[in-house]
Amino acid sequence: MSATSQTTLLNKPRLIEIMRAERIDAMVATSPENVTYTSGYWALSQWIRRGPQIYVLLPQSDLNASEIIASTTLLDQIADQADVWIRNVRRYGYFQVDRANAPLDQLDQRQAGLYALTDDGSPLDALVKAITSRGLSRSRIAVDEIGLLPGHWERLAEALPNATLVPAFQLLRRVRAVKTDEEIARLGRVARITEDSIDAALSIASEGVTESELARPFHSCTVMNDAFPVIGCIGFGTRAAMPNVQPSATPLKRGDVIRFDVGGRYRHYRADIARIAVLGEADRKTADYCHALHVGVLKALEMIRPGVRASDVFATAVEAVRREGIGHYNRSHVGHGIGLDGYDLPDLTAASQDIIEERMVMCVETPYYELGWTGLQVEDMVVVRRDGIESLMSSSGGLRIVP
Amino acid sequence: MSATSQTTLLNKPRLIEIMRAERIDAMVATSPENVTYTSGYWALSQWIRRGPQIYVLLPQSDLNASEIIASTTLLDQIADQADVWIRNVRRYGYFQVDRANAPLDQLDQRQAGLYALTDDGSPLDALVKAITSRGLSRSRIAVDEIGLLPGHWERLAEALPNATLVPAFQLLRRVRAVKTDEEIARLGRVARITEDSIDAALSIASEGVTESELARPFHSCTVMNDAFPVIGCIGFGTRAAMPNVQPSATPLKRGDVIRFDVGGRYRHYRADIARIAVLGEADRKTADYCHALHVGVLKALEMIRPGVRASDVFATAVEAVRREGIGHYNRSHVGHGIGLDGYDLPDLTAASQDIIEERMVMCVETPYYELGWTGLQVEDMVVVRRDGIESLMSSSGGLRIVP
Repeated sequence: MSATSQTTLLNKPRLIEIMRAERIDAMVATSPENVTYTSGYWALSQWIRRGPQIYVLLPQSDLNASEIIASTTLLDQIADQADVWIRNVRRYGYFQVDRANAPLDQLDQRQAGLYALTDDGSPLDALVKAITSRGLSRSRIAVDEIGLLPGHWERLAEALPNATLVPAFQLLRRVRAVKTDEEIARLGRVARITEDSIDAALSIASEGVTESELARPFHSCTVMNDAFPVIGCIGFGTRAAMPNVQPSATPLKRGDVIRFDVGGRYRHYRADIARIAVLGEADRKTADYCHALHVGVLKALEMIRPGVRASDVFATAVEAVRREGIGHYNRSHVGHGIGLDGYDLPDLTAASQDIIEERMVMCVETPYYELGWTGLQVEDMVVVRRDGIESLMSSSGGLRIVP
Repeated sequence: MSATSQTTLLNKPRLIEIMRAERIDAMVATSPENVTYTSGYWALSQWIRRGPQIYVLLPQSDLNASEIIASTTLLDQIADQADVWIRNVRRYGYFQVDRANAPLDQLDQRQAGLYALTDDGSPLDALVKAITSRGLSRSRIAVDEIGLLPGHWERLAEALPNATLVPAFQLLRRVRAVKTDEEIARLGRVARITEDSIDAALSIASEGVTESELARPFHSCTVMNDAFPVIGCIGFGTRAAMPNVQPSATPLKRGDVIRFDVGGRYRHYRADIARIAVLGEADRKTADYCHALHVGVLKALEMIRPGVRASDVFATAVEAVRREGIGHYNRSHVGHGIGLDGYDLPDLTAASQDIIEERMVMCVETPYYELGWTGLQVEDMVVVRRDGIESLMSSSGGLRIVP
């Protein structure tokens, strides 16, 4: 089974490979990103709140014996989501669902089957039962530490005195770094939706239009394409120098830079794209700096292929920007992976130890923020292929002029 | 200073009252909801990811000495947000922002001032410095346990060996339960936006339209009103029996129930509203059950006023639904508070110890899910006033007929 032939979000061969290399007998996902990634299960309240506990147990010796541990209130979503490939479920907690005196369709039958499961009490009790009943109570278990509540790690260690618990969050980030076909397809789609949303926003850009007014068609285009707003940094003029600029009542003036650092979520997968436009004519500095930043991204993209060091990509991008016109250019990073989370591996930093691999999906970016002037940013999404990158973008990262 | 005269999100008198009653010298907020609530500061990456650390330290003896501890990457939002009332800020981490050789406006000056602060290294180091420099290292400190990373609590305890650390999450839920005028205004606005979005969705409801197609004008109306989609459960027919139903390609048929359990976020404040419609004519059971569930909510609303027990509200609602036509009606709860989080206090459950207070904002609901038939739900948002409730709704919770 190769990553290319998979329809799951989870890269199963890579998970097994990393578990074997790290001598891990079982993996437990707990954070929303890792639960959805490993099982395909997207549980509404886990994503929109802090606290709701959902786990996925993945035994290294047999992934088909994996289990989802879910609150009874959220079982319906397991029954309804085609992404879910795990068949074993444990539930915890009371929730009232009645049943008609009528034949049930397949979806209702799946729900009825899940509601009929024994109530395992609390999420941690259910997890301990799952681990014990799979014969894993004396094994080495990697537990995603990010999704647990305070004290849960200690209680798990007490309940499993013969198991060895190690943190899983960084291991799962490594698994998630190399994408399956299904993930790449979704990332391509959300990139396209985000570019279309930028076009929708720019289509109303004119003197006097406010940042908030520009944000409306941007997000509306996103939701009309079945995606959800996540990042919507849209800033004009000096406000564009704020890295996280949120749309305000500030009106657009001729000559203003419009900086977009934006991206929605489509079928759970994130986009993160930056583009620059100017209303009317760009002055010399704006044009020159945009050119330098754009070349920085292009030079980075030219060198990206499997086996290249992330730190070399960083150095190449920064040097290109300096050479092309921003001599004092400095950055903490020039990009990062993207997937269910906005910051997957690799990290494109000076100190990064990451090596580029085939099927990584990355954002490559050269932001520049100058307080009192403006902010400029080019950010493209690309997939790493055998011989280089495949861009997920349909537009150029160069400066756009809005007439 | 009374809650009514406040323009902050934070109910300062209530915070002080609860800290005094619990003998707490200082409170530390760590989760996104509590950071935004206590300080007014909404930090993009803390809200959309798991992990980024932002803290707010609130000394009981002098709230004006409160401090925000933020990553350098997120300082711009402190400078730009009028909601932020805390003037003391500590920052940690490297982030490159250049500076133009030009005069700075007020917003840029505020940013420049924040970037010029000393880098305090790590978030925990910065928090320990804040606590120590305020003379609180030997005091009793309530720390919001939900936003910390694993191991942080222990490291904080080690770094402050003479302090007593107690969990703050439940204490802060109690503070948040009674809203300020500013919070009530935002909750009223997001309730209205959500009702308008339901109308926008129903305006295109006709035979053959899919759940996903109905969701598009719903969310588009939300974003065109500067709110953001959060909950969008929209289900037809038997699918409406799924509590968390997500829009699918299922087409609407004549006689189908359309159940909405929906609500966006406006200036960070959440809505959670449920309405029921039928395409064409409702059959007798649907009409009768909708009536019973609606009366359940109305009877609960009639009795809600300061001093009433939440458990009595629960009993009243459930009994009314049973008496009015669903004899077997059972529920885990009939509502909850709402604010920055979707589940604030009070909890309207049988076992709740909560007492209703003036200025609580609540969702009161009577959902009914019948597998193989459909799901029905009425959910209103209301504010508790001195003599009863003030509804935030402009529409009735009764069954709507779409011709």
